[in-house]
Amino acid sequence: MIVSKIEHIGIAVRNLQEAGKFYEQILGLECYREETVKDQKVRTAFYMAGNLKIELLEPTSQDSPIAKFIEKRGEGIHHIAFETKDLPKVLDKLDNKQIRLIDRHPRLGAEGLQIAFLHPASTHGVLLELCEACRK
Amino acid sequence: MIVSKIEHIGIAVRNLQEAGKFYEQILGLECYREETVKDQKVRTAFYMAGNLKIELLEPTSQDSPIAKFIEKRGEGIHHIAFETKDLPKVLDKLDNKQIRLIDRHPRLGAEGLQIAFLHPASTHGVLLELCEACRK
Repeated sequence: MIVSKIEHIGIAVRNLQEAGKFYEQILGLECYREETVKDQKVRTAFYMAGNLKIELLEPTSQDSPIAKFIEKRGEGIHHIAFETKDLPKVLDKLDNKQIRLIDRHPRLGAEGLQIAFLHPASTHGVLLELCEACRK
Repeated sequence: MIVSKIEHIGIAVRNLQEAGKFYEQILGLECYREETVKDQKVRTAFYMAGNLKIELLEPTSQDSPIAKFIEKRGEGIHHIAFETKDLPKVLDKLDNKQIRLIDRHPRLGAEGLQIAFLHPASTHGVLLELCEACRK
């Protein structure tokens, strides 16, 4: 089994504060962390929804992938992130199976995780992130 | 707190068997249930991904909401379902807070759950399902 569980769901929003009101005041969730990921040009806010983290993503510049997503499709669910082990090896295996990879090698994501995205063309339309806690 | 955890993620696909190959052969997940929900004109397949269920949704007719979603946006993530308690009361509360409801009253969904959808216009673009196990 390549994936062990779902690590989080990523949701693209125009403004963290505005969207956060819905998650806090309507759904009753609590933001436990905010972080800027410079590499991806996003500011993120994390909410724990019982069994799963929700990551809200606000673009920090107009050429951010999240800005382009919102421009094309509006705010909404952006990706699903699965937890895996030995990410470099998993990416090799997927490459061998002709799965289209956005990241051929792991890179640093939010919360210090090693991450890599698979292309929706190979996943029936889902932008799928694989992530792994840094091994020490 | 209105929601206690995420119950499942719904993903719109053209064909359950084709999409199922990715979830089974690539991600290594197992389908534990298939079910047709006549009311919504979909056939569903459920996969357990560790902490969370994934529900694949295939339209059974061209006027199915899932068929329209795929026609407009292609295959992809369709909704997030949160578990709640006393769904009728929750819907009353949301209505009082001017949250736009697709279903003003609970209806029967897959796996025997009582469900209701909130409109993306009130949720920053997320088609959000609330669900509750039937009370006995």
